[in-house]
Amino acid sequence: MSKANLDLVGIGNAIVDVLSKTDDAFLSSNKIHKGTMTLIEAEQAEALYAKMGPGMEVSGGSVANSIAAFASMSGSAGYIGKLANDQLGQVFRHDIKAYGVEFDTPSLEDGPPTARCLILITPDAQRTMCTFLGACVWIAPSDLNEEMIKNAKVTYLEGYLYDRPRAKQTFRKACEISHAGGKKVALSLSDPFCVERHRDEFLDLVKSDVDILFANEDEISSLYKTSTFDEAIHYTREACEISVITRSAKGSLIITKDETIEVPAEAVAQVVDTTGAGDMYAAGFLYGLTRSKSMAECGRIGSIAAAEVIAHVGARPQTNLKQLLQEKKAV
Amino acid sequence: MSKANLDLVGIGNAIVDVLSKTDDAFLSSNKIHKGTMTLIEAEQAEALYAKMGPGMEVSGGSVANSIAAFASMSGSAGYIGKLANDQLGQVFRHDIKAYGVEFDTPSLEDGPPTARCLILITPDAQRTMCTFLGACVWIAPSDLNEEMIKNAKVTYLEGYLYDRPRAKQTFRKACEISHAGGKKVALSLSDPFCVERHRDEFLDLVKSDVDILFANEDEISSLYKTSTFDEAIHYTREACEISVITRSAKGSLIITKDETIEVPAEAVAQVVDTTGAGDMYAAGFLYGLTRSKSMAECGRIGSIAAAEVIAHVGARPQTNLKQLLQEKKAV
Repeated sequence: MSKANLDLVGIGNAIVDVLSKTDDAFLSSNKIHKGTMTLIEAEQAEALYAKMGPGMEVSGGSVANSIAAFASMSGSAGYIGKLANDQLGQVFRHDIKAYGVEFDTPSLEDGPPTARCLILITPDAQRTMCTFLGACVWIAPSDLNEEMIKNAKVTYLEGYLYDRPRAKQTFRKACEISHAGGKKVALSLSDPFCVERHRDEFLDLVKSDVDILFANEDEISSLYKTSTFDEAIHYTREACEISVITRSAKGSLIITKDETIEVPAEAVAQVVDTTGAGDMYAAGFLYGLTRSKSMAECGRIGSIAAAEVIAHVGARPQTNLKQLLQEKKAV
Repeated sequence: MSKANLDLVGIGNAIVDVLSKTDDAFLSSNKIHKGTMTLIEAEQAEALYAKMGPGMEVSGGSVANSIAAFASMSGSAGYIGKLANDQLGQVFRHDIKAYGVEFDTPSLEDGPPTARCLILITPDAQRTMCTFLGACVWIAPSDLNEEMIKNAKVTYLEGYLYDRPRAKQTFRKACEISHAGGKKVALSLSDPFCVERHRDEFLDLVKSDVDILFANEDEISSLYKTSTFDEAIHYTREACEISVITRSAKGSLIITKDETIEVPAEAVAQVVDTTGAGDMYAAGFLYGLTRSKSMAECGRIGSIAAAEVIAHVGARPQTNLKQLLQEKKAV
């Protein structure tokens, strides 16, 4: 049933975000480490939610955000992720399909509810995430649409999948299928604590299975445990064909075997909520790549998409990105 | 269990909004009348949702929005409305309580799901609403917290409640309880089509039970079927102690027995989504009123709250309104 030859397939945790504004005192009193992602269980999620301010529910999930944005740029895309058969699952399914993304992973029956991520936004626009994985944990290799993956130019995975054994197996199998089809595998390192939890496996994975790596400075430094950023660059250049390091307001670095390209950040009138900035950058970069743009052009498209998302609350674009890229003469 | 002497109790349809950006062509091709609220059944809601773009879920409901805003200004408030025991119901319950509102209406078991309102936002920032009432329809006089109502300074009701017989009974009973306690009843006319559907009953209600009336120009003209706006003002002055007519960018008019006060609209850098503008105005006006402010001051507080909400997507404030009012020296 899948269209042949999608540009991009994403595999990740299918999550609905609950975004709420808060202050630093709330984070400290609840012992939550600002700027990171913490995994929480159902009871913790309930207790934290009860204490949080009013929220806004928006479909999320790191790679799912990228896939939605990629489709909004007019790229052809598919997604694989596990939902429960509940109202939040219906919301997620509706939204990703509304972006024009192919999504046919069957919902989990009789298991935990659809995953949610409690996102606390502080006045400095930083986002701090507490994730209850729920149904996501039940993704299995049998959920992979093999036709879709082996025909897609790039399969994009998130490090977060590594947090559960069954998802890890699914992850490994997706890499095999993609490479067997002669296609590329991209990975986001997701979060410095996630890298800490799985460093040895990530090092192996990045070296043997990943063609395009996305990370921020904390994540790449955590992966290689280097004292300087330059050393980390050295290692990642050895390991991957393309490494992209996002650096917030400092822009991004694209590292290939032969060169290092600096890409400036796009100007933003007011940064409101940084949730999804990395996801949007990856979407834009991969959009350029699947259209054979130069590395610098790929980086610029990523930066434009990231700038759109940090100017409002929520991790998915509120603007038609295809139009935005045309206005900016980036495509 | 209820705190004695709340400033304000709201009774309305407890709804979760699904907000989505669209264009005028989508409205015409789906035969939806721009700027109004249409009631739809479950199947219609599903069909429309399937065609809509990606959404954002935020607690809504006209009077519930006002009550949330009133609490955000630091007013003491309670709410009465019917939810189902489902995920969207949990979202609504969490949010209104997170604003500090007293809310203890029991959820409906084994009935339709929590109500949702599909809100289509066009590029002109206008909102067009299609509401599936779901569990709301099952509100009954027995859901009224009589202690709460008879002790509250003002009980605020929405015209939308009149769309179902059981809710109508509940509405009438709430008026009786409030007046028996020597307190005031406020009503929002909600929507010109809603006024059309119930004109005769509304005329009677406004004359005999309503102390403070909120309406926009279309609604008040529809109520009195007058050819000129001045005539409508004449009739509403006869009928109610205070009538407040909101007029979008033209500001608002406050009509009492003795005078007509013009209140200018607050400046907004960019109008993004007008959803909730009337609800916020009512919240601000009632906040001023319960603090014995002058009519002009009440109107200004309403205008400031309305200006906050139209500058972003969603019908509830994203700013602490107490602080905002202090910054604007309105309280």
